[in-house]
Amino acid sequence: MDDDSRAVRWTQRTEIPLFVASLVFLAAYATHVLATGMPAFWHVVCLSVMFALWLVFAADYAVRWRLSGQGLRFVTTHLLHTVVVVLPLLRPLRIVPLYDAVQRKAGEPRLTLHARVISYAGLSTVLLGFSGALAVYQAERGAPGATMRTYGDAVWWAASTLTTVGYGDITPVTPMGRVIATGMMIGGLALLGAVTGSFSSWLMQTFSREGDERPPGR
Amino acid sequence: MDDDSRAVRWTQRTEIPLFVASLVFLAAYATHVLATGMPAFWHVVCLSVMFALWLVFAADYAVRWRLSGQGLRFVTTHLLHTVVVVLPLLRPLRIVPLYDAVQRKAGEPRLTLHARVISYAGLSTVLLGFSGALAVYQAERGAPGATMRTYGDAVWWAASTLTTVGYGDITPVTPMGRVIATGMMIGGLALLGAVTGSFSSWLMQTFSREGDERPPGR
Amino acid sequence: MDDDSRAVRWTQRTEIPLFVASLVFLAAYATHVLATGMPAFWHVVCLSVMFALWLVFAADYAVRWRLSGQGLRFVTTHLLHTVVVVLPLLRPLRIVPLYDAVQRKAGEPRLTLHARVISYAGLSTVLLGFSGALAVYQAERGAPGATMRTYGDAVWWAASTLTTVGYGDITPVTPMGRVIATGMMIGGLALLGAVTGSFSSWLMQTFSREGDERPPGR
Amino acid sequence: MDDDSRAVRWTQRTEIPLFVASLVFLAAYATHVLATGMPAFWHVVCLSVMFALWLVFAADYAVRWRLSGQGLRFVTTHLLHTVVVVLPLLRPLRIVPLYDAVQRKAGEPRLTLHARVISYAGLSTVLLGFSGALAVYQAERGAPGATMRTYGDAVWWAASTLTTVGYGDITPVTPMGRVIATGMMIGGLALLGAVTGSFSSWLMQTFSREGDERPPGR
Repeated sequence: MDDDSRAVRWTQRTEIPLFVASLVFLAAYATHVLATGMPAFWHVVCLSVMFALWLVFAADYAVRWRLSGQGLRFVTTHLLHTVVVVLPLLRPLRIVPLYDAVQRKAGEPRLTLHARVISYAGLSTVLLGFSGALAVYQAERGAPGATMRTYGDAVWWAASTLTTVGYGDITPVTPMGRVIATGMMIGGLALLGAVTGSFSSWLMQTFSREGDERPPGR
Repeated sequence: MDDDSRAVRWTQRTEIPLFVASLVFLAAYATHVLATGMPAFWHVVCLSVMFALWLVFAADYAVRWRLSGQGLRFVTTHLLHTVVVVLPLLRPLRIVPLYDAVQRKAGEPRLTLHARVISYAGLSTVLLGFSGALAVYQAERGAPGATMRTYGDAVWWAASTLTTVGYGDITPVTPMGRVIATGMMIGGLALLGAVTGSFSSWLMQTFSREGDERPPGR
Repeated sequence: MDDDSRAVRWTQRTEIPLFVASLVFLAAYATHVLATGMPAFWHVVCLSVMFALWLVFAADYAVRWRLSGQGLRFVTTHLLHTVVVVLPLLRPLRIVPLYDAVQRKAGEPRLTLHARVISYAGLSTVLLGFSGALAVYQAERGAPGATMRTYGDAVWWAASTLTTVGYGDITPVTPMGRVIATGMMIGGLALLGAVTGSFSSWLMQTFSREGDERPPGR
Repeated sequence: MDDDSRAVRWTQRTEIPLFVASLVFLAAYATHVLATGMPAFWHVVCLSVMFALWLVFAADYAVRWRLSGQGLRFVTTHLLHTVVVVLPLLRPLRIVPLYDAVQRKAGEPRLTLHARVISYAGLSTVLLGFSGALAVYQAERGAPGATMRTYGDAVWWAASTLTTVGYGDITPVTPMGRVIATGMMIGGLALLGAVTGSFSSWLMQTFSREGDERPPGR
């Protein structure tokens, strides 16, 4: 059996377990950050779970690299994969392969192109918002002069940042918080730009279908 | 007579009355929220009107579901319809079917594609702005530390939010207000993105018509 | 001679004088607003000039309406024209017919499509910014709690508003100022969206010209 | 040998040294602005290096103008070139010719169109952000009422400005700072609009490749 088909088989078998693992990772991180009153033991459990899962992600990356037979070029041709190994919080962004894997089993008809782009970019933005809010909240909490006092504040700040509204009633003040925030701005701009563009072209397409007399939403 | 033609007939007959009903719903909600000095009796009248109209909307949704013969898939294939039953304040967004119904009676020539997209998305944004400003104002009014003191403030806040300018001189501080605000940001981003995109491609099209020497606005 | 060719001749002869008149109107308004130390007599002169020019614009509109032979439909088919009669400050937006008229005389080669859209939308944005800043400054000046104290503040505010950055360090507080500001947000969003879209597609086009080895800006 | 091939040869030979020179210029400016505790002698050295490099840039511009044989039209046909002679801080924006020159030597396969537009516009935005933050920081430093106190503040302000988020926690207050900031807003809007547009159309293209079952990031 050649490397390529083994790589495809590996992907098909690991996609769903790895996605579940990435959600567990996110949950463990959220528990570690938000459950401030929790005994120290459980914080150690959360961190251990995160470390163990990260090892699993790294092993998966190594196996794929090996199976691809591409050498160093693998790092750039699988850029999203490389990013999510370094920053496992972003791993749920790999929701598309999961969606594909689920669909292939269920055999249901796929969504239209616009619906797929909107739902992928929309879900990615939501996950980016919650993960980013957690990370910024961890950096800001307790900093002198911080305006972000609760996780609710952090989520509200993330919403106003990702949509580029940027009220400025709550802003990160620590260097770490600002670095993460800058990453979120760029990611939000790109992902929501894709949502907006797709919605706009879907609307245009719907309105141009004159003959069949079917306005949107009927 | 088959189900499909009955569904079309139902739509043609109910579209205009239902649109008028949705404007009455919005007016009753606005009266309830803004007329603070009104006797309690009239508040009860407003809420009763809203509840009665909501029953009408729900009945219309049930009839259409029945006539469609689609079962549970109706919920996703008629997504806008489902949303406006849950959130009747957004019902005026269904302005397109109305426009179609009016046009079909009047027999007038339709607008161009760009003009239709711009006017639909623009009107939707205006309605979203006024409804959202009402809902956020109701949530914020009297909250400790609220910067949104009058309905005028709420409309000004809505304008700066929907255009993603986001001054931050007035911002919601209650959890409910922030949840509604986040919905408005996303809706505004998508709808105004469609307006901007259509305007931009209309401008491009106008400027590319070299031969007939007709600049825009002459 | 038929009405149509008379309409074209009217346009060709009046375009340049009317554009100059619109700049004089803007200058008179700017003098009225900004020259606070000026004797009352000169304020009367400015207002008289503005009123006289407005009569000229109205007369031009009436003549065109007459020549078009369209009746009430003229109001919607010449929408930009109707807007600039009601709000003469926006008249310099009609820079395209002027550009055409000048070009036709000079016989020079025209700019490319992208360059024309960018320069038209860009110039319109700059004019909208300066006129809007003047109008908002006039409404805000001396209002209690106003953060906009000088015309420089107003221009800075206009720049951050039209680009949808919206810092919020300076914001209008009067109802009149906020109404004008909302109009500017919408206009800025549409015009700068056109600039951005054109620039983006120009960049894409430039980068896709592989064969001739000509990167942009060489 | 004709002028055109001499112009091409000139470009090929000078591109890489000039790009290195522009990075040295940026480094000298950064040292001058940021190293406040440095002896006056080294400030003179920095300024001398900047002046010398500017002379080199001006000479290169003069040679190209001469070789082009275009006369005054050269100023508009090589607009980016003209801009970077006047504002040498922006010179690193000419990263594309460099990329081309390096590629031609290396003979490697080029990136796809979307990747090239995204990386060019993205890199340009990053350079614009750092240069602009330096220039605004120099203008703001020590101004009465300035909220921008460190270079870190300036970079954070630049990130929130270029993405049009615009929190407003830090804003320029001096006229010079505001003029530079307005230029950055416009540049950021155009460049990030190109990044967003390219990313969006790349995502759309990736999702539309149904047949080969290859979601992005696998």
